Amino acid sequence: MHDTTRTEIASLGEFGLIEHLTKNNETKNAGTILSIGDDAAVIDQFGRQCVVSTDMLLEGIHFDLMYTPLKHLGYKSVVVNLSDIYAMMATPTQITLSVGISNKFSVEAIEEFYEGVYAACDKYNVDLVGGDTSTSKMGFVISVTAIGEVAPDKYVTRSGAKLNDLICVSGDLGAAYLGLQLLEREKKIFLENPGVQPDLQSQSYLVKRILKPEPRADIVEWLQEHGIMPTAMIDVSDGLSSELLHICKDSEVGCILYEDKIPMHDDARAMALEFKVGEAACALSGGEDYELLFTVKQEDYEKVARNNDISIIGYITEKNEGAHLLTKGGNKHKLSAQGWNAFV
Amino acid sequence: MHDTTRTEIASLGEFGLIEHLTKNNETKNAGTILSIGDDAAVIDQFGRQCVVSTDMLLEGIHFDLMYTPLKHLGYKSVVVNLSDIYAMMATPTQITLSVGISNKFSVEAIEEFYEGVYAACDKYNVDLVGGDTSTSKMGFVISVTAIGEVAPDKYVTRSGAKLNDLICVSGDLGAAYLGLQLLEREKKIFLENPGVQPDLQSQSYLVKRILKPEPRADIVEWLQEHGIMPTAMIDVSDGLSSELLHICKDSEVGCILYEDKIPMHDDARAMALEFKVGEAACALSGGEDYELLFTVKQEDYEKVARNNDISIIGYITEKNEGAHLLTKGGNKHKLSAQGWNAFV
Repeated sequence: MHDTTRTEIASLGEFGLIEHLTKNNETKNAGTILSIGDDAAVIDQFGRQCVVSTDMLLEGIHFDLMYTPLKHLGYKSVVVNLSDIYAMMATPTQITLSVGISNKFSVEAIEEFYEGVYAACDKYNVDLVGGDTSTSKMGFVISVTAIGEVAPDKYVTRSGAKLNDLICVSGDLGAAYLGLQLLEREKKIFLENPGVQPDLQSQSYLVKRILKPEPRADIVEWLQEHGIMPTAMIDVSDGLSSELLHICKDSEVGCILYEDKIPMHDDARAMALEFKVGEAACALSGGEDYELLFTVKQEDYEKVARNNDISIIGYITEKNEGAHLLTKGGNKHKLSAQGWNAFV
Repeated sequence: MHDTTRTEIASLGEFGLIEHLTKNNETKNAGTILSIGDDAAVIDQFGRQCVVSTDMLLEGIHFDLMYTPLKHLGYKSVVVNLSDIYAMMATPTQITLSVGISNKFSVEAIEEFYEGVYAACDKYNVDLVGGDTSTSKMGFVISVTAIGEVAPDKYVTRSGAKLNDLICVSGDLGAAYLGLQLLEREKKIFLENPGVQPDLQSQSYLVKRILKPEPRADIVEWLQEHGIMPTAMIDVSDGLSSELLHICKDSEVGCILYEDKIPMHDDARAMALEFKVGEAACALSGGEDYELLFTVKQEDYEKVARNNDISIIGYITEKNEGAHLLTKGGNKHKLSAQGWNAFV
């Protein structure tokens, strides 16, 4: 945090702060009729369907301000919500943002957070149309609601996967989890030896995956351009296992997942080795990858196989066959959701 | 909280908890095509405009669990958001709800909270269509986003008040603030003498106003039925002064407000006397009344005057005349926003 100049929040007051933070907010969508500054936002959908999703991020649970730059945090807060909208094969159009902030924060610190918010809005052509700002005695609290649009009945749910459909995933998995482990390790070293500055440059891929993820707008666009309508889709926020089990449960099907087909970045494989954790475990249970997991019909195989950024990692089976992982060694393991469980 | 049976949240897990809490969630609007259970909700607007509003409620800032029953808190969390939608002259149709909860809460306690949420949804014909549940190390955190619809361009903003328009307010003001003071006093007494149980029965009106407010759906309906289109409208969450100044600023006008016209309940007047605070101050700066403050054209005077639940409390002046309160004693005071200021 830059504290060379420090403006106290109290000097602006609640409304002054909101005004200050939103004064450069430009709306981009024709459908955004009324934005920040009134009781609510007005959005015209022109006969298209409106898609809404919401996520909450809490200090100490979802992020650690010790190694999370506020600008990245603002960016990520938006992106994790947009990822949910893309996972419906919809296009995000607006977000609302509520924050609870302690008055230990300077205005400059909050500005950094909003810089990240606006950067994500700009990049994904989304309007910030409303929100609520309040003081917090309990650390930094962030809640984002994203709204998107989709042509009538062209959205994709978790429940449409059918027997023999191919299971696909975009990008690579496990890197965000390993980036987080790395940051936690460096934090521990720093706390024990405050003079030692961590060198994270060489691990920029892993660190970027956890601190500044990107939603897969490009994959949704590519699928649309190539006339591929997934039968089911979900974004990977809690780990591959957990997400695939959601699809299986909601679609009332089983699945076979091939361990050797799970896409991983070289840096992630190397770091898994360094941390002495299984590569597959990082992908299956790590979470926060924000890739898209989806199923397509067999007839779409050739189209999908041509995209190097999509991996075909398994197929859908009958419900009574259950959900299984076929390991590199040829063993068959029952898939279990060992993703981040908030309440244990 | 009832703790006769206690189910640990950990025994359900995050997804189990969501499922448990939403299993009886029935959707009521034809436009709700897809509700809880997927990445996002799908809402068809049939050519109507979509209105969105969001509010965050934080333990220790917006509520005190020592005297706030969880069911009331759930109800209020929804209602304060619906109030924003009504203040646009729109009809709320859906909400999303995110909660951060500490694992000191039992499942039964969270169920009570959701009972209140569903009670408000049922009463106002609104669907809960999504949300996020997470653990919190920082007390109870609640974020609600409400979505509503309105016929194209029939919404009312804060910026349309014109010279000579009448300033109107629904119901009565100041009671919620006095209810809160009463609860705070009883809490203090109880903490000093744990054996003494407060008798709040005789003050049920004041207590209800702070713990279980109702949004003025009835006023919006009445205005629509009588063909009255307010020129500006806002809900009273931060106190009459603050809200009226919002209208004046956004409409670029001034105003005269008559102290003797400000509607107050007899119980509120009596309690103001008991607390030795000015009656008007409670209405002007108290907040949390969730009444509707709006302006209408002079030609609507007779229609509005016929509704006993609407008070005409002043009129709009030129901007350069400023915003003033005319006291009972005949003095003219500049209006200032002394409402709840979160950052002081």
